[in-house]
Amino acid sequence: MTEIQIELDSDNLSKNIGLVKYVDFTSTETFIFEGGGSINGFTLRYETYGRLNDKKNNAILICHAISGDHHCAGKYTVEDRKPGWWDNMVGPGKAIDTNLFFVICSNCLGGCQGSTGPSSVDPGTGKPYRLDFPSLTIRDIVRAQNLLIEYLNLNELYCVVGGSMGGMQVLQWAIDYPDKVKRILPLASAARQSAQAIAFNEVGRCSIVQDPGWKEGNYSLGEGPSVGLSVARMMAHITYLSDKGMEIKFGRNRRKDTKGHHLTKIEFEVEGYLRYQGQAFINRFDANTYLYFSKAIDRFDLHGEAGKLEDILSKVQARALIIGFTSDWLYTPRQNREIVTALLRCGKNATYAEVDMDLGHDSFLIDAPELYNFVRSFLND
Amino acid sequence: MTEIQIELDSDNLSKNIGLVKYVDFTSTETFIFEGGGSINGFTLRYETYGRLNDKKNNAILICHAISGDHHCAGKYTVEDRKPGWWDNMVGPGKAIDTNLFFVICSNCLGGCQGSTGPSSVDPGTGKPYRLDFPSLTIRDIVRAQNLLIEYLNLNELYCVVGGSMGGMQVLQWAIDYPDKVKRILPLASAARQSAQAIAFNEVGRCSIVQDPGWKEGNYSLGEGPSVGLSVARMMAHITYLSDKGMEIKFGRNRRKDTKGHHLTKIEFEVEGYLRYQGQAFINRFDANTYLYFSKAIDRFDLHGEAGKLEDILSKVQARALIIGFTSDWLYTPRQNREIVTALLRCGKNATYAEVDMDLGHDSFLIDAPELYNFVRSFLND
Repeated sequence: MTEIQIELDSDNLSKNIGLVKYVDFTSTETFIFEGGGSINGFTLRYETYGRLNDKKNNAILICHAISGDHHCAGKYTVEDRKPGWWDNMVGPGKAIDTNLFFVICSNCLGGCQGSTGPSSVDPGTGKPYRLDFPSLTIRDIVRAQNLLIEYLNLNELYCVVGGSMGGMQVLQWAIDYPDKVKRILPLASAARQSAQAIAFNEVGRCSIVQDPGWKEGNYSLGEGPSVGLSVARMMAHITYLSDKGMEIKFGRNRRKDTKGHHLTKIEFEVEGYLRYQGQAFINRFDANTYLYFSKAIDRFDLHGEAGKLEDILSKVQARALIIGFTSDWLYTPRQNREIVTALLRCGKNATYAEVDMDLGHDSFLIDAPELYNFVRSFLND
Repeated sequence: MTEIQIELDSDNLSKNIGLVKYVDFTSTETFIFEGGGSINGFTLRYETYGRLNDKKNNAILICHAISGDHHCAGKYTVEDRKPGWWDNMVGPGKAIDTNLFFVICSNCLGGCQGSTGPSSVDPGTGKPYRLDFPSLTIRDIVRAQNLLIEYLNLNELYCVVGGSMGGMQVLQWAIDYPDKVKRILPLASAARQSAQAIAFNEVGRCSIVQDPGWKEGNYSLGEGPSVGLSVARMMAHITYLSDKGMEIKFGRNRRKDTKGHHLTKIEFEVEGYLRYQGQAFINRFDANTYLYFSKAIDRFDLHGEAGKLEDILSKVQARALIIGFTSDWLYTPRQNREIVTALLRCGKNATYAEVDMDLGHDSFLIDAPELYNFVRSFLND
């Protein structure tokens, strides 16, 4: 079985996952997209942590959010400045306990961190797909993940977990593969993208595609609409935080080195923070992937044309814990509760936990003992 | 006395203000800015409606928001597609009743609709000020308005009224000219800009100044950073609405003419609405003025360095009605109540009305009988 964890000394193992490696899974079959179009095979980059048990029934799949990737826990080298994006949640003895579970996390189809996406080379032409990459939906992302799960020879997933866009994938997993998925744990998610959330994504897209550097999507690798993408990221980052959280973290604190009244220099700490977020993002993310992912999110709508969430959630067989956050205004507690209510109306085994945190949408990524307790209890029950 | 209203037939007069003209007031004296720097004289474009009474004690000054101007009511010609921006509130028999009051509205100093701002020609150089225009604060805007009020030979203002950035000016009026201002009515406003609101403004500014068309502020008139300004406006427009308001108005309604899954075309109605708002804005607004106004807003902080709102509000002599809106998340009800609480702590005559509307920050601009009643009762009491 896949086993890529390299164990460090045993003292360290109790708290840290140790050094990890990523693996590339490649499907050579034609992949037909939900909205039409196809690609001749694809690659998904993924990581695993922990060991699959003999019954092969302890696998947990983690789905990432729009700017996430397969590197969810651990470090590649001891020199790495930061571990994976959910290292506080995933590891030996942690809430998603790699001493108990075999955890898998893959970079989504359409991504730019090793999985096939718009910046990947189309084997048919020898050139990057760019905008010839077919239109992408959350269902496509999940179906590609399922091919990885089949390749790993897993007939069931103990749980599928994820926040934000990851939570949308979690719901889609339970709908499209009801026999396979035993539990689901979507966090800070929604059954459909709201008008306000579409609006924010649209501003980000307009910022990107109107940047002359976008070149109708045909920018060279390493170049691209860096201004448009950084502005999109800065704006999106505000939606990931909260009014109160920003007040606590930054308030009206001023930079010490910006006396006077200059128009364009950083004056307030919050400005410097956002500019840093925007700049950091353009160094690690592909603008076209951002367009494809944001569209996949905007099109996500489990209410369907009939507007009845129960119609589609009636397929779910998994036990469900939905977690919302009080200060999340991107995917509000109301939107998270709506999922549970619909599941309960269908007679499903579903419950809801609302975590009182000030940090907004990104609360699911933050160190929070109460959140850990909810996750641990649900997984170990 | 200034009298520019041209009366139409009497039937019309009962409901509509009729045709109006703007007037330019020019000060030839040196104007020194709060943050340093000066200009050799300036112009404020303004309009008035109604008649000043013999006692000269029925004047109401209206202060506009970031994208507003002096054209607050009436039409210039019968062919005008739209009347002034607050025509629903200001006019004969309306909540701010021009049969009773002499109403003044001026384009702010720093503006781009006729008043002196960065796009105006510096008489000293014969070229536009651009970024040589001194740094601007809400106090500067109010002090320039006061020179207009002095020119109009008014020793008192019956009331100063305004929403959003206009509400900040209203508060500053009551603080800087306590003997002159008898009543104040700020709507959807705040005593200081929050971290989240600074953050949104900063994204807008980054969008503008990173647009190659900005040219360090030296773009030619009629040109400029149109992409950056439109993205800034689109984003800001989301903050003027509300999650619920957008859900009611747009939901996930799709454009009929955009079948299929195109990446950059308008797919959802809300996208088309926002793009229209962005495009309309660049045709009527100067990017540098947007930078100056947004900075003036961000720097507004009546809490002062000591962090005590009461210290500065203790100067107020005016009766105050503060109006907040339940769905306003840019300047929240809490922020509006905070002003009233501080005024009451100082023993001032102040009260608060919260209007339950779904439309967000822009609620103060919308047709709302309950809002009209609050305004009318306060002014006529």
